[in-house]
Amino acid sequence: MTATFKVGDQAKLTKSFTAEDVNHFAALSEDFNPIHIDSVAAAASIFGGQVVHGMLVASLISGLLGAHLPGSGTIYLGQDLAFKAPIYIGDEVTAIVEVIEIREDKPIAKLRTYCLNQKGKLVLDGIATVKYA
Amino acid sequence: MTATFKVGDQAKLTKSFTAEDVNHFAALSEDFNPIHIDSVAAAASIFGGQVVHGMLVASLISGLLGAHLPGSGTIYLGQDLAFKAPIYIGDEVTAIVEVIEIREDKPIAKLRTYCLNQKGKLVLDGIATVKYA
Repeated sequence: MTATFKVGDQAKLTKSFTAEDVNHFAALSEDFNPIHIDSVAAAASIFGGQVVHGMLVASLISGLLGAHLPGSGTIYLGQDLAFKAPIYIGDEVTAIVEVIEIREDKPIAKLRTYCLNQKGKLVLDGIATVKYA
Repeated sequence: MTATFKVGDQAKLTKSFTAEDVNHFAALSEDFNPIHIDSVAAAASIFGGQVVHGMLVASLISGLLGAHLPGSGTIYLGQDLAFKAPIYIGDEVTAIVEVIEIREDKPIAKLRTYCLNQKGKLVLDGIATVKYA
């Protein structure tokens, strides 16, 4: 089995989340924490504004892996995530996946997975392990 | 700072995801992999049916942490995830979080975070690190 990608290959995706997106995700995840869905409470919190759920930001990584790199047929085996800084509603998040290891014995690869905000600040960092088709 | 919870405390939540939930999550995450959203292609795949996005299943953990244990004010610092088995549309997923470590020096705790299907099979396993209020 030979991978059609190599160490160093990258894919990226930029997206902003709206208040409606966050409300949808709150219903899906049952996480109705006021810092996510209540603009008044969020403004009064240490964050100073409505924060996008970390797991929603992380879902962009899942999307990149399944749709772009490795792409269709990818099976998600694991994901380590470190949430470094908040993403606010309306922020422009760029999610990046970069191949860091391709196993010789099995169709399994590791990718560094991270997200930056529109100022280039690292907001999420981690490692994904995937089986590729 | 004293935690209002102790090692061994648990919270759990059971939920089924519909095809509509999966379609919503596909749009949020930009992951339109056919195994998630195309019933015909999914039936013909090695999974034999439409699989819920792993990160959507994992979002139940986020919900438990933010809403139940530790609860309101929780800040998500990190999450390690191992995807063990598929969850299909209509499956009953039970997400469980259990406190495994409370730091003495800072308001930081670790919880084992895992999900079972309706047959009691482990489908997702991991560790969350949180700062609690």
